[in-house]
Amino acid sequence: MDVAKAIRDRRSVRSYENKDIPQEVLLKVLEAARLAPSANNRQPWKFVVVREAAKRKALAKAAKEQQFVAEAPVVIAAVALEPERTMTCGVPIYAVDLAIAVDHMTLAAVQQGLGSCWIGAFYQEDVKKLLEIPDECKVAALLTLGYPRDQARFKNRKSLDEIVCYEKWC
Amino acid sequence: MDVAKAIRDRRSVRSYENKDIPQEVLLKVLEAARLAPSANNRQPWKFVVVREAAKRKALAKAAKEQQFVAEAPVVIAAVALEPERTMTCGVPIYAVDLAIAVDHMTLAAVQQGLGSCWIGAFYQEDVKKLLEIPDECKVAALLTLGYPRDQARFKNRKSLDEIVCYEKWC
Repeated sequence: MDVAKAIRDRRSVRSYENKDIPQEVLLKVLEAARLAPSANNRQPWKFVVVREAAKRKALAKAAKEQQFVAEAPVVIAAVALEPERTMTCGVPIYAVDLAIAVDHMTLAAVQQGLGSCWIGAFYQEDVKKLLEIPDECKVAALLTLGYPRDQARFKNRKSLDEIVCYEKWC
Repeated sequence: MDVAKAIRDRRSVRSYENKDIPQEVLLKVLEAARLAPSANNRQPWKFVVVREAAKRKALAKAAKEQQFVAEAPVVIAAVALEPERTMTCGVPIYAVDLAIAVDHMTLAAVQQGLGSCWIGAFYQEDVKKLLEIPDECKVAALLTLGYPRDQARFKNRKSLDEIVCYEKWC
C-alpha cells in the first residue's frame, strides 16, 4: 500500500472483530518498529506484546477502563529503556524515539488491514507492574491492534494554510 | 511507494544535491504532517518552512554548526503550540504529537525521492528568535529536506528477538 494512502487511511480504531492476528502479520508490524530511526541509533526500546485475555483485561483497567483495550486481540506496550535523556533542544529523547517506532507500527498496520489505537491515558505504575517492566524504564504508549469492526470516518483536520508558515512565524 | 518499502528505505540524509524542491512536491510532504493524528485531535502544531539561504545558514549555526542544514534546500521547523500538556501516563503530549507529524513527513519524503534528517541538536532560543516563534511555543524538531547526494547505507538494527517480549518483560 502506498505511503500517502496509508497516512490518509490510518485512523484510531476502538472497535475490533473477534478475530486473532496471525503471528506472521504481527511480525510485519513489529518489523516497522524495529526499522525505525532513533537518536544516535540507540534503539532504546522494547515492545511487550500481550495476547492473553486476562492481561488485556487488566491493561484495559489500567487504561482508565477503556474497554476496547480488552477487546483488541493484541496490545503492545512500547517501553523506553532510557527515559531520562534529553536533546540539546530540550525535548525528551525517549518520547520522540518511541513515538517514531509506534507511528511506524500504526502505518504498517494499515497496510496489513489492521486498525490500531494509540493510548496515552493509562497509569504508568499499574502497567509496569502488570507486565513486570523494570522501574528504570517507562511505558511510552500502549497500542491496540486488531481487525476494525467500525467504519472509516471523515478525517477532520486544519487546512495547510492554518498550519504552515514560510520563512518565519505567521 | 509501499509503506514497508518507505520504512525500509528511509534513512538520515546529510548531503544534498544543489537542486530545489518544487513547491508541489513540498506540499505533498506537508500534507503528510497535516493528516497526522494527535492527542484529542488538537493538531497542536505549526510548520515553518525555510528556503532562504541566509536563514538556512543561521539555522545551521543554531544547530551546532551542522553545515548540511545550510545545504539542504528546505528546512522545516516543527513547532509545538502547547508544550506544557502531559498524558496520564506521564509522557509530554507535544513531543509525541510533533514526532508523529515529523515521522509522517520523513516517510512521505521517501515517496517523493527526497531525503531528510531529523535534528534535535539545536539551541531552542536561537531558532525561536530567528524564526520569530512566540515564547510560549517550543520547536520540537528541525527537519532538513532535499535530494540525496550520498548513497544508501546498511541499516544497522537490533534483531526482533532483542526488542520484542511476549506477555511480560524478558
